[in-house]
Amino acid sequence: MATPTEAALSGAALRALEGDAPFALPRDGISFAYGLPDPSLFPTEALSEATEAVLRDEAGTALQYGELLGYPRLRQYIAERLEATEGLHLDTDRIMITGGASQAIVLLTQAFVDPGDAIVVEAPTFVGAEKTFRALGARMYEVPIDEQGMVPAALAETLDQLQTAGTRPKFLYTMPTFHNPAGVTQPLARRRAILRIAAAHELVIIEDDAYGDLRYDGDPLPSLFELDKRSLVIRLGTFSKILAAGLRLGWVAGDSQAVGALAALKFDQATSPYNGALAAEVGLSGRLDPHVERLRAAYREKRDALLEALDRYCQPYARWTRPAGGFFVWLELNDEVDPAVLLEGAGRHGVSYVPGQACFASPGHDQFVRLAFSYVAADEIEEGVRRLGLALAEAVPRGSAKVAI
Amino acid sequence: MATPTEAALSGAALRALEGDAPFALPRDGISFAYGLPDPSLFPTEALSEATEAVLRDEAGTALQYGELLGYPRLRQYIAERLEATEGLHLDTDRIMITGGASQAIVLLTQAFVDPGDAIVVEAPTFVGAEKTFRALGARMYEVPIDEQGMVPAALAETLDQLQTAGTRPKFLYTMPTFHNPAGVTQPLARRRAILRIAAAHELVIIEDDAYGDLRYDGDPLPSLFELDKRSLVIRLGTFSKILAAGLRLGWVAGDSQAVGALAALKFDQATSPYNGALAAEVGLSGRLDPHVERLRAAYREKRDALLEALDRYCQPYARWTRPAGGFFVWLELNDEVDPAVLLEGAGRHGVSYVPGQACFASPGHDQFVRLAFSYVAADEIEEGVRRLGLALAEAVPRGSAKVAI
Repeated sequence: MATPTEAALSGAALRALEGDAPFALPRDGISFAYGLPDPSLFPTEALSEATEAVLRDEAGTALQYGELLGYPRLRQYIAERLEATEGLHLDTDRIMITGGASQAIVLLTQAFVDPGDAIVVEAPTFVGAEKTFRALGARMYEVPIDEQGMVPAALAETLDQLQTAGTRPKFLYTMPTFHNPAGVTQPLARRRAILRIAAAHELVIIEDDAYGDLRYDGDPLPSLFELDKRSLVIRLGTFSKILAAGLRLGWVAGDSQAVGALAALKFDQATSPYNGALAAEVGLSGRLDPHVERLRAAYREKRDALLEALDRYCQPYARWTRPAGGFFVWLELNDEVDPAVLLEGAGRHGVSYVPGQACFASPGHDQFVRLAFSYVAADEIEEGVRRLGLALAEAVPRGSAKVAI
Repeated sequence: MATPTEAALSGAALRALEGDAPFALPRDGISFAYGLPDPSLFPTEALSEATEAVLRDEAGTALQYGELLGYPRLRQYIAERLEATEGLHLDTDRIMITGGASQAIVLLTQAFVDPGDAIVVEAPTFVGAEKTFRALGARMYEVPIDEQGMVPAALAETLDQLQTAGTRPKFLYTMPTFHNPAGVTQPLARRRAILRIAAAHELVIIEDDAYGDLRYDGDPLPSLFELDKRSLVIRLGTFSKILAAGLRLGWVAGDSQAVGALAALKFDQATSPYNGALAAEVGLSGRLDPHVERLRAAYREKRDALLEALDRYCQPYARWTRPAGGFFVWLELNDEVDPAVLLEGAGRHGVSYVPGQACFASPGHDQFVRLAFSYVAADEIEEGVRRLGLALAEAVPRGSAKVAI
């Protein structure tokens, strides 16, 4: 019999509980499943110094309730950083601090989606966003991605079909840079094409830029937010990858209407003013940028190790993306690989990954594999991929794999 | 013309934006409006010592993403504290850490309320909860309170009427101890009566206990959660009043069904593991309890100063509660006091408060005034109340006030 609490649950709670059980992350072996920052790179010294300064100079505001938009000094730092790196001139009232970019996704969903409303997502997309959208009742329409990210022609077709059906999607959720899970990046021309299509439909775009600071090759591209002339784009950023995920600090930048609605819905009050003060102090004291440089070097090395090992051990069985930044490599298994046999074999050989189907709104897609190179120790990457290669070989009917050259 | 973001807003966003503009808190003069902790009492030394220990011993977990229920060591500390103070034996899996008790209120509303669902609240109630409930589409049914908190007979009548109408309310939201804004506390007999009535209706109870640690007189009473034998009660607690609001650390304890639903809806991931680690370290190292003792002494003194000054300056114009704990005194103005004239005069004399009507789900109730004694400096309390007395005298038609003895 249902308990009183069980009997009283809402539609959102039931949808959240009925959702895919989160894939069980493995405890043993070498894991490419965790899309987590490398804890050996946490900036404890910078945080220790920032703590001293904050408790000495700002305790009265940092330890108190704060402004709904978040700690003013951190919004100031974000505005300055956007100006220095992208030439953006952004009023701090157009920036809101959130409990990680995850909370920004929750608030944006609440701000735009009534249950049953349509939204457009990439296929694949960020598993956490997909879970939030689904539980809050969004109907998701998928647009495929290729090696250059979301395919503009497919976006246009989806939007036209929705328009013909009289459905106006509330927003498009996209990761133009170092996509999670696919690792791909939209080139400039594609960014412009996507903006043009969205503008024709007056479609709000949520640009999730969680990994943009972690670029290992090439020059930065302008964000959709920077290219936007129509106040369509709302941009998400985070300190989780470049400072510390445990501080839970993300941010949203958008037009004043969007930020105003988010503030009205931020019933949990200001995101930790204390953590905001710490991050601002680390940034404004000049300690963050050199730290990000160190991160780039360390993660670049891990990415290279992963790609080299994949070339060595997995060539006959799959193809994969070669990300210029971020945390992820995305494998598409060759047709002859049996994904279920692979998953079982990987467990047996002591290596793990996220099965690709977790990253789609629609069922299927089990020919994909997400490998994160961020968390696994650098000196375990080759051995992990060697084990993956063994599992791949066993997941192919005898004699059917293409022979590696 | 609406911008694309404006045109796409959800019902929840529109309700949140259309809600009462938050009362403008005054910047000048002496303010009894702010229900904030006293910043001169923030435990900066304890936090500094805790930081050192956490960054030395726990950086790998404290700065990383964490478990959805929140930092394990903090849940452990909360369980130990509930055992020490209330004799409760609570599994740590029945405790979830939230971004302040405010986030617990948001998540509980999402977990139980579909737009249009009925809930039961006290009149008056916590202004932040009322705002959340309204924006998320709850229909609120009010139950009055008196000097002993919520009136059981009125609760029973409301529930019977709802039942007759075929409406099953999703929960009752109540503050049994040191009510905000009313300052009153339910005696034991009344707690039992409320539980009996709720049990008869299988009504979930959300017990908000934000101020329970700040008792200035008398002995603690068992919480509804402790008295509950039917898994009806979900209890909220917070570190905002006893440690630092700026850490944004609250918690929920409930049955496993309720906590499971909250975890499924916690799309913003674990509440800051770093802040959880800091609070756990302050608590488990034995620094929190003596700090709470200091807070009790300091706030007791402020409460006494406020009550003495009210007796001296405001006797002819109002009656008020005498809280045994918490942050608030609640005034009911005598009939002959004009609330609008009082508000204008208070501004002129340089003293401020929260007009009572902000604390009700229904309109009206302007004969009430909330005074917070927590934030105003101890040595300004008497002068503030003297000014309030002047404004009260001017808000009464000449010759009509009862003469103070």
